[in-house]
Amino acid sequence: MSSRVGVDIGGTKILVARLEGDEVVGTKKRSTPQSGVPKLIESVAKLVERVDPEGHAPVGVGLPGQIDAVAGTARSSPNLKGIDDEPVAIRDLVAEATGREVAIDNDVNVATLAEHRLGAGRGARDLLGVFVGTGVGGGLILDGRLRRGSRGLAGEIGHMVVAHRDGAICACGLPGHLEAYAGRASLERRAREAHAEGRETELVVIAGDERMKSSVWAKALEAGDPVARSLIDEALEALVAGITSVVVTVDLDLVVLGGGLAHRLGEPFREDLESSVNQAMFASAQVRVRWAELGDDSGAIGAACLTD
Amino acid sequence: MSSRVGVDIGGTKILVARLEGDEVVGTKKRSTPQSGVPKLIESVAKLVERVDPEGHAPVGVGLPGQIDAVAGTARSSPNLKGIDDEPVAIRDLVAEATGREVAIDNDVNVATLAEHRLGAGRGARDLLGVFVGTGVGGGLILDGRLRRGSRGLAGEIGHMVVAHRDGAICACGLPGHLEAYAGRASLERRAREAHAEGRETELVVIAGDERMKSSVWAKALEAGDPVARSLIDEALEALVAGITSVVVTVDLDLVVLGGGLAHRLGEPFREDLESSVNQAMFASAQVRVRWAELGDDSGAIGAACLTD
Repeated sequence: MSSRVGVDIGGTKILVARLEGDEVVGTKKRSTPQSGVPKLIESVAKLVERVDPEGHAPVGVGLPGQIDAVAGTARSSPNLKGIDDEPVAIRDLVAEATGREVAIDNDVNVATLAEHRLGAGRGARDLLGVFVGTGVGGGLILDGRLRRGSRGLAGEIGHMVVAHRDGAICACGLPGHLEAYAGRASLERRAREAHAEGRETELVVIAGDERMKSSVWAKALEAGDPVARSLIDEALEALVAGITSVVVTVDLDLVVLGGGLAHRLGEPFREDLESSVNQAMFASAQVRVRWAELGDDSGAIGAACLTD
Repeated sequence: MSSRVGVDIGGTKILVARLEGDEVVGTKKRSTPQSGVPKLIESVAKLVERVDPEGHAPVGVGLPGQIDAVAGTARSSPNLKGIDDEPVAIRDLVAEATGREVAIDNDVNVATLAEHRLGAGRGARDLLGVFVGTGVGGGLILDGRLRRGSRGLAGEIGHMVVAHRDGAICACGLPGHLEAYAGRASLERRAREAHAEGRETELVVIAGDERMKSSVWAKALEAGDPVARSLIDEALEALVAGITSVVVTVDLDLVVLGGGLAHRLGEPFREDLESSVNQAMFASAQVRVRWAELGDDSGAIGAACLTD
């Protein structure tokens, strides 16, 4: 089986894995340098060399931000120092530093690809990856291939419009988007607004002035907090609307669910989502919702799969 | 260039066209027999023979209802006598009656294919066909090919969810669907409800107890009727939500707009739709909305293209 290297560049760490065929045979990681692009590329090249010292295996790189997979460039990656508004030629820089063939894509596409090749979506012809964390990300596999689209927008389900009028405002500034209801950052904003309007909530009791982490939401739900319950219910309704709309648009029957908030809310959340989606759907359009299986390694594994 | 025959089976008429390459070189039509499937197939076969008496050109058939293009079957076609809940093997029946190769698909997919091959979408890699009439239909071209999906649901944009809570009820019985806001039948229902609640409206003055045809809507808008204006504005908002969601899901930059209501509302409607979609969208996701070009022949032309 062929050897491939995958690089997952996150805001806090870089994880590199070597795959032989479909098996992870070695990983290396380090914290992400925050002193600009040259240092970042140097670190990536060193990790690649360490995980595959003998070889010339091709390298796939997944990273956050607006990635143009065809041009091989990255921009607007708020968590990576030096990747701002101007496109940075990450693919060519990594190719130069490693002397290898390189492919890149964004972290959500890469995680979706990983689940399709080696995780919860193995063998599926079509699937939608839904990642509910700080925001809501998505990735789309159609006819066995990652759908990118000519502008690399495909799968940006966080910006689907689930409220056609008077919609909540998304982090992107536009109204009615899925992420404005179902992303953790928006949920925190809405909880703090409710609190400021005089509604008591465990969310603020537990979080105080700190970030309202996913665990805070899980605890508040467990305590039966009505503000948390009502906001998470609306998050579910928004996710149901978005997933239903994807299903009738492209026709698929499998959703792979991941992301920090989804995992923290756990099996009741997945069950609610699956049953609500199927209640909202024609009988002929039933959908399974499965957990993403690959966890922390999915970024590196999916990145390696970019080289196929 | 190769010869192909396209058959458009509608509720009131059957139109058959022969194409040489991309040119329509002959058409025949007759009213749709309403005495069951055998008579329907016989009529189709006769028209095919008349439009292509010498040849053995392959035949494409477009018809309304739930069509399984792979199995070649049709069901639930309310406007065609004898095509009810059980699948009818239209493809095989037409093949037997004509002795030719046959392909079938639903009327909206076929109209979208026609616009992609020979109409407003020529040369586009990806496009969404949006047909606003009694209901809201859609067709999706991705990477130059009609997307059907494993269950033939792809493009069913009328059933996208554009209101994640407290949505209007669609003809299919489910809440919040695009068609519940933007289809002519739903618009009429909502207008009559408003009237029953005591709101004066030109729509009812013009239509009386008759069907509220597209021309009634156009006249009421022209007369400045506030009920018509507010319902059409909400129809636009719902279409904007649906189109925006398709664009961020699959990434495309061209919408081809057709359908009786859309055409009757005319260029102001298209302009409003295009500018509203682009206001609702990231700068990087701009979209053109073009009129469908092929008019009444699109069904037969698209059906012929099924044989490619």
